Amino acid sequence: MSENVTPIQSNSRHELRQLVRSQLQLLLEQGNLQGAKALLVPVQPVDIADAIEGLPESMELIAFRLLGKAEAIQVYEYLDSTVQQSLIEQFKQQEVREIVDQMSPDDRARLFDELPAKIVRRLLEQLSPEERQNTALLLGYEEDTAGRIMTPEYISLKESLTVAQTLERIRGLAKTSEIIYYLYVTDAFRRLTGIVSLRELVLSSPETTLGEIMARDIVWVNTGDDQEEVARMIQRYDLLAVPVVDLEQRLVGVVTVDDVIDILQQEATEDIYALGGVQSDGDNYFQMNLVTVARKRVVWLLVLLLTNTATTTIIKSQVTLLEQMAILTAFIPLLTGTGGNVGAQSSTVVIRGLNTDDLSDLGPGQVVLRELIAGALLGIFLGTLATVWAYFLQGNWFVSIAVGISLVAIAILASVAGSALPFLFRSLGLDPALMSAPFITTAVDVVGVLIYFMIARIILGL
Amino acid sequence: MSENVTPIQSNSRHELRQLVRSQLQLLLEQGNLQGAKALLVPVQPVDIADAIEGLPESMELIAFRLLGKAEAIQVYEYLDSTVQQSLIEQFKQQEVREIVDQMSPDDRARLFDELPAKIVRRLLEQLSPEERQNTALLLGYEEDTAGRIMTPEYISLKESLTVAQTLERIRGLAKTSEIIYYLYVTDAFRRLTGIVSLRELVLSSPETTLGEIMARDIVWVNTGDDQEEVARMIQRYDLLAVPVVDLEQRLVGVVTVDDVIDILQQEATEDIYALGGVQSDGDNYFQMNLVTVARKRVVWLLVLLLTNTATTTIIKSQVTLLEQMAILTAFIPLLTGTGGNVGAQSSTVVIRGLNTDDLSDLGPGQVVLRELIAGALLGIFLGTLATVWAYFLQGNWFVSIAVGISLVAIAILASVAGSALPFLFRSLGLDPALMSAPFITTAVDVVGVLIYFMIARIILGL
Repeated sequence: MSENVTPIQSNSRHELRQLVRSQLQLLLEQGNLQGAKALLVPVQPVDIADAIEGLPESMELIAFRLLGKAEAIQVYEYLDSTVQQSLIEQFKQQEVREIVDQMSPDDRARLFDELPAKIVRRLLEQLSPEERQNTALLLGYEEDTAGRIMTPEYISLKESLTVAQTLERIRGLAKTSEIIYYLYVTDAFRRLTGIVSLRELVLSSPETTLGEIMARDIVWVNTGDDQEEVARMIQRYDLLAVPVVDLEQRLVGVVTVDDVIDILQQEATEDIYALGGVQSDGDNYFQMNLVTVARKRVVWLLVLLLTNTATTTIIKSQVTLLEQMAILTAFIPLLTGTGGNVGAQSSTVVIRGLNTDDLSDLGPGQVVLRELIAGALLGIFLGTLATVWAYFLQGNWFVSIAVGISLVAIAILASVAGSALPFLFRSLGLDPALMSAPFITTAVDVVGVLIYFMIARIILGL
Repeated sequence: MSENVTPIQSNSRHELRQLVRSQLQLLLEQGNLQGAKALLVPVQPVDIADAIEGLPESMELIAFRLLGKAEAIQVYEYLDSTVQQSLIEQFKQQEVREIVDQMSPDDRARLFDELPAKIVRRLLEQLSPEERQNTALLLGYEEDTAGRIMTPEYISLKESLTVAQTLERIRGLAKTSEIIYYLYVTDAFRRLTGIVSLRELVLSSPETTLGEIMARDIVWVNTGDDQEEVARMIQRYDLLAVPVVDLEQRLVGVVTVDDVIDILQQEATEDIYALGGVQSDGDNYFQMNLVTVARKRVVWLLVLLLTNTATTTIIKSQVTLLEQMAILTAFIPLLTGTGGNVGAQSSTVVIRGLNTDDLSDLGPGQVVLRELIAGALLGIFLGTLATVWAYFLQGNWFVSIAVGISLVAIAILASVAGSALPFLFRSLGLDPALMSAPFITTAVDVVGVLIYFMIARIILGL
């Protein structure tokens, strides 16, 4: 914490970060370590991490060593995992020990996930026994579960303690605990029996016992619960943290709201990428090299190209029809395009509904029926317009009516497929987002041209 | 808070909610008010709100009146705005006064936004002078800004106070303050000069002054800042709340992390809906009637249908070419489909990058160039495959090569359009999400067929 720093306006925070970045590099290039150190004093740890990430690799370690011990750990926790790794490899043994030992257990578990097994083993050996145990505990749970993202550094107390005793106690414990806004009350078997907020504690008279003021209707999660479910829980009940219990109801950790925000953000990005047909694993797309970018996109494109070859084959089989009536071709993109868009809308709202629990009150049947009716309404409206437009373009009522009827049929089919396939995929234990807009759009292409040719043949008598 | 309630596992929370819903309705139908009251005692306010929303309208008020005063206000804040409105109209004057007066100012401002102006005026008159002023303050700021979503109920203190005096003081203030985990230190002009966390306060010795322990490097926002920017700030700096200052740097309110989570969630849903071509205003899609659903979807579909008529017109102009070479038709959906998917990928990552600030380090030129190269890589790979597949399907190398070359050109064009148009829209002050997958897909259709016909004519010499 620094003295006499003028508060900075939020609007200029971004420019400030840019300025710190460029100034830091300049000072380091000049070898002005004192100046660089002074520059970083009033800067927030997350912004220092940002500035270090922006430096050439050769300067990262020099910049990092300008930081005081406590700050160094905070900054290290905010660094990108690639920079964390490169620093670990350059650190002296003593530095490694100090930093890795004092990181938050959840941040450390995240780092260990990224490092080669050999380095993790060496690092584990260097940890203090207590921290080693903490880390092993977290790494023992599956990725993306409450157990993996929790911190085991909470404060648990017995309900017979008074408020005064508790305040005394937490003065000693707070340094090693990430969160002290909730205190957890446990019984002789370490089972969670109540929660006292720091707010409640401060407002209660000193001689009250925790048992008298604790809340007994507790919202908690199990170690195996998915991180997204943990996030929804904190969001729904407006909590700052949620306790994690094991199968015997024993308290083993706490997940805090700041981690939850990052999880929700990351899950939203993954959903959005899936909807756009891009694979995602939480890394920053704009920091990947272009070969990785192409690899993350090519899989979906190949699937879609393959699906599209079916469309090609269907059209090819109708070449004699098209030779007689080439004008039919003109409406293929309009029909498949509109159908694809209707289907994309349905799948988008259903996938988002499944992922946010907004859908929990409606069964699959009700949802698909709703979408079917909506698709029919949209299809009738757009089909009428398309019929008029088609007549205006080429003057043949039969062709126009074939276009209009096809559009109604395609819109209904698209909205049913778009809403039903995500449910089907979920019931098979797959990610519903796989049935997202690009896939629905392409699938509707295939079935759309088939419907169009059938209807056209019937109406035109060909 | 209830005694002797067995803690409930997270996995069964959803079933529990369903159970409370059905039981509540059953008991009310039997006229067993005592039983209904007892049922709700151990239930969390947000879940009670959920149960009340599930009741027939005629029972909502009866159920609501079972609640104690303090809980009633909490539950009311969680209710959907439609249920809030219907209750307001049924409340007796005294009930209205009590509930609306004691709601959090930010929740009240949100309610007033939804109510007819006439009712708002009447309600404002019934508020206590202090609450009236609070509400008027919030309603004076534009929607979706920090000023509108903040709560003016924070604790501000002078830096000369000691820790002991402060603890004494907040015991009196905490009841009226939504957040006491941060205490704000202001000078004689009400300007924010520092922040003391409750944690720091509890850990410091009683005779220390706030001036000695307060943090002076403060992250804050201005009243006019967009709510999404406020959310990013809390997320970046891992805060539980961020102070809001006016143009004279005076502290006027606080935005808390629980509101921020809801904002991020809502913004993500809006982005996802935009990517799927569905209009959104934060309402729950699955609770809308079907006419509203159709209305929210038809606008985009009309725009896309209109764009697609251009494709139709282009194909119609090439009818003589297609009569000679009907097989060319077979590859139109494959080319436009693949191009659309490549473009959708580019626009998805760029729009998400713009909305999350992941993109802040790259300029538009760099991003478009990256996407151009990625598009070229993908185009060359997929174009080669498509050439082989096209030859396999119809045995004419000229047609196959026209398909392959067109695919490369279309992929490059699609990735450039998909990445550049969101930037263009943002620089025009429009929402970049308007340039999302459905639009890019349709636009690529138009230009795609044009490119295909040109290349086919050149290569086939027609």
